[in-house]
Amino acid sequence: MAQGSYNGRLSNVPDEGDEFRFSSDMSLEEVRDLQNKFCRERQWGQFHAPRNVLLAMVGEVGELSELFQWKGEVQRGLPEFSSEEKVQVGEEMADVLIYLCDLAEQCKIDLPQAVRDKFQKNAQKYPSGRVFGRSNKYNDYTEYKEEQAPVTLNRSREREEADGSE
Amino acid sequence: MAQGSYNGRLSNVPDEGDEFRFSSDMSLEEVRDLQNKFCRERQWGQFHAPRNVLLAMVGEVGELSELFQWKGEVQRGLPEFSSEEKVQVGEEMADVLIYLCDLAEQCKIDLPQAVRDKFQKNAQKYPSGRVFGRSNKYNDYTEYKEEQAPVTLNRSREREEADGSE
Amino acid sequence: MAQGSYNGRLSNVPDEGDEFRFSSDMSLEEVRDLQNKFCRERQWGQFHAPRNVLLAMVGEVGELSELFQWKGEVQRGLPEFSSEEKVQVGEEMADVLIYLCDLAEQCKIDLPQAVRDKFQKNAQKYPSGRVFGRSNKYNDYTEYKEEQAPVTLNRSREREEADGSE
Amino acid sequence: MAQGSYNGRLSNVPDEGDEFRFSSDMSLEEVRDLQNKFCRERQWGQFHAPRNVLLAMVGEVGELSELFQWKGEVQRGLPEFSSEEKVQVGEEMADVLIYLCDLAEQCKIDLPQAVRDKFQKNAQKYPSGRVFGRSNKYNDYTEYKEEQAPVTLNRSREREEADGSE
Repeated sequence: MAQGSYNGRLSNVPDEGDEFRFSSDMSLEEVRDLQNKFCRERQWGQFHAPRNVLLAMVGEVGELSELFQWKGEVQRGLPEFSSEEKVQVGEEMADVLIYLCDLAEQCKIDLPQAVRDKFQKNAQKYPSGRVFGRSNKYNDYTEYKEEQAPVTLNRSREREEADGSE
Repeated sequence: MAQGSYNGRLSNVPDEGDEFRFSSDMSLEEVRDLQNKFCRERQWGQFHAPRNVLLAMVGEVGELSELFQWKGEVQRGLPEFSSEEKVQVGEEMADVLIYLCDLAEQCKIDLPQAVRDKFQKNAQKYPSGRVFGRSNKYNDYTEYKEEQAPVTLNRSREREEADGSE
Repeated sequence: MAQGSYNGRLSNVPDEGDEFRFSSDMSLEEVRDLQNKFCRERQWGQFHAPRNVLLAMVGEVGELSELFQWKGEVQRGLPEFSSEEKVQVGEEMADVLIYLCDLAEQCKIDLPQAVRDKFQKNAQKYPSGRVFGRSNKYNDYTEYKEEQAPVTLNRSREREEADGSE
Repeated sequence: MAQGSYNGRLSNVPDEGDEFRFSSDMSLEEVRDLQNKFCRERQWGQFHAPRNVLLAMVGEVGELSELFQWKGEVQRGLPEFSSEEKVQVGEEMADVLIYLCDLAEQCKIDLPQAVRDKFQKNAQKYPSGRVFGRSNKYNDYTEYKEEQAPVTLNRSREREEADGSE
């Protein structure tokens, strides 16, 4: 696991601080509205049944994954990618986001509220004091087993550590 | 294909007009910043290598799919789902979005700009005049074949129709 | 939920009996061996690191999903698909299987044994006597909640019903 | 790209030769038949509509991905995984395979024949003579661009290199 955890780390990224930020304040509502208008102008809304849009999103996630599939470990900022590949990564990420907002609309799920609720839930579940520096949460599997019985829970708990998802 | 296209339609949804909107104007930058802070407070950023976060997002897309897997066709607004299931759908959508913004940060991709560029590209590619009402674009496969030779392009083109993705 | 479960049903498929079978007895080992030879002849094995192959498989699952994305509910045997689309479905399924066997080899996982162990586990977990006809296991969410506390378990349990996966 | 391709390589795996093989000759038909019987005994077949099974498979691919999500680069044979994690990897792989064979049955796709057709197609498309040692096919993106125009084709072509998928 030691090597595994080492591989898991971003050696070139200090954990504290980060200068990167998105350029604008585009809202989730803007993305939803842009896609809604785009489809309505083309009378495509009739085809956007929830499971149709969900499968379309799965397709875009597959396209995004293809851009990373033969790269081996990739460093932050994608230094291994050509400028053209980086444009493609942005396009596939945009497609995933567009379909996710579309799916939320079809399901009548208030995505911004869902995000707020999720972070609140995560903060209660993983008080930074308790888990601070417990990086082994990400890789020391056996500790989980001892701590929280069922294997499936351990796995989801491991995943939850990343963002406290339920 | 006729039946296929009929199945593909949302019989209970008029194509024009739509009252639904997200409740707030939460921005993509807010989501990125919330996740960045959440992980930094827990020193988890060191584990968020691009492919780690990508696989975490794939995991969340899988969890979202599980909520739809035995439902058969689902109607708009998820009338078939319990209130508890709807909460879960929102949580899994939130997880996908959180990891997508996290991935964009790790890749240093400006997601809002990528979305704008994508819609601009789509608008040029699919002028509403040309494709208006051409719903068969979504299901008449043979027409595609005649129009645009390579099969892989046909498929992506079919998918592109939904949001003009490349 | 009633309608949801009705939608979930294949109205045109009797539950008991099924004539369909695969034409040959191609083994998993043959698939693994064919892919191993194919890659070795081209010196591609060096690129088939486990996570590379995993992401390639995710890409193929995305391509398979794209073939179903605008179809709405699909009937058994894909009557809504053109013969050309059916060929594509077969090709994408083949790609998923080829990469899955490749991934099992890279991970040195004995896939046939894993399948046997899984079915044995499932048989113990879901004795046909207990669950026979309890179709609501597929859609009655609330029953789960009362039965087995944690929500994540409910979801996986619902999924497990399909094949008893852990 | 140099570093990218280096990362992409399995430094500890010689390209030629490979001792690993699956322990048995379990056939795809056996997997299909085991799942068909398992579901029929429980009257679950009625819920296995094609898109239901497809989404269930996507869910299992997500669970498999979760097992690799915080690992960073993983070495062949999974030395970084605990024995318990390796069992889980096998279980999730089994779930993906079981649903894939189930999906093929629901779609009435002859999976073994599809695999044979695919390898034949790949062999014609990528004669080992032409591509032997052209490892850059996996990572030299610009070469693709010059060679085969459309970007989407480049991406799929890159993917195709792995198994010649269409």
